[in-house]
Amino acid sequence: MARPRTFDPDAALDAAMRVFWAQGFDATSIDDIVRATGVNRSSLYSLWGDKRGLFVASLDRYGESVGGLWLRLLNEGPSPLAAIRSYVTLLASAICDDPDRLGCFAVNSAVEVGSDPAIAPAIRANFDLVEEGYRAALLRARDLGELPPDADIDAHAAHLAVTTQALLLQARTGAPRATILAAARIALSTLPFPEVP
Amino acid sequence: MARPRTFDPDAALDAAMRVFWAQGFDATSIDDIVRATGVNRSSLYSLWGDKRGLFVASLDRYGESVGGLWLRLLNEGPSPLAAIRSYVTLLASAICDDPDRLGCFAVNSAVEVGSDPAIAPAIRANFDLVEEGYRAALLRARDLGELPPDADIDAHAAHLAVTTQALLLQARTGAPRATILAAARIALSTLPFPEVP
Repeated sequence: MARPRTFDPDAALDAAMRVFWAQGFDATSIDDIVRATGVNRSSLYSLWGDKRGLFVASLDRYGESVGGLWLRLLNEGPSPLAAIRSYVTLLASAICDDPDRLGCFAVNSAVEVGSDPAIAPAIRANFDLVEEGYRAALLRARDLGELPPDADIDAHAAHLAVTTQALLLQARTGAPRATILAAARIALSTLPFPEVP
Repeated sequence: MARPRTFDPDAALDAAMRVFWAQGFDATSIDDIVRATGVNRSSLYSLWGDKRGLFVASLDRYGESVGGLWLRLLNEGPSPLAAIRSYVTLLASAICDDPDRLGCFAVNSAVEVGSDPAIAPAIRANFDLVEEGYRAALLRARDLGELPPDADIDAHAAHLAVTTQALLLQARTGAPRATILAAARIALSTLPFPEVP
């Protein structure tokens, strides 16, 4: 009997995530995942159950890796509001500059399979990460006096989260650069800023 | 030889549009369209070429019918800014109240097939309709003195268009009602309003 092939589950999941991100759920076959990961079908199934399980794990991994890298920006520097502005502005630029126009794996998945009850929580978890990141930064801004004591933190967090999704959606709509950057700039004008933009 | 069956192309297109809207491009077969329209395959092909042609025509029809109905709101009443506020607020409520969570046919299509060069212009045309509707209302607002003479009309039109797409996307993301309404409220705070909301 051959020894079972060993593989790194995180590396396999990263590879699977990139295929699902580029192609979506329906258009991706398990054979695509086998090719991309170099891991055989039975090993994939034994760890993640089925294609749906692998997709959900890929969404979780996306939040940890891609989402995590971006969200770190919200914690940088002494001014939380400046960090929010940097995050949104950098995101808008990155979207304009991405030649593949992949957009966001979670936004794309919401449109494609958001009504699938086995997948929806993993999509929602990605959006909640972003909203929580904004909420934490807004609370710090209020504590530091960058926002007035009566600022509606939840409403601003919701608006920023929805704006982020909207900008990421633009990657798929073919919106001109000027539209994307103007939309980001006006959205940010809902917050007072300690420095002139 | 049997007489070719006569049918109303607009009614057939409405039926086709609803199927594509609910199911997307890939998951819809020509048989689905034949069933929904009651029109046979060769008649569909003779008018619209193929499934892609029918999809593009459905997107155009969506802009004229569903889009047109909504955009009329932007022309109602004496105050263009109040009309913009009503439009966005009603849209946000309608999204929260739609049990099917279909979202917007154009937004969904952008994510699914926005990179298809034969389809992209029809998606973009839908988005442009909305942005143009906002731009026209904002120009009227400026002419009436509701906006200052130096207001950046293009930037506000871009922001409102992106916000509209963002709200429509929420139909698919399972966002809570409070998030959708708060996001709409904060987005609208980027414009001065003649009346207290």
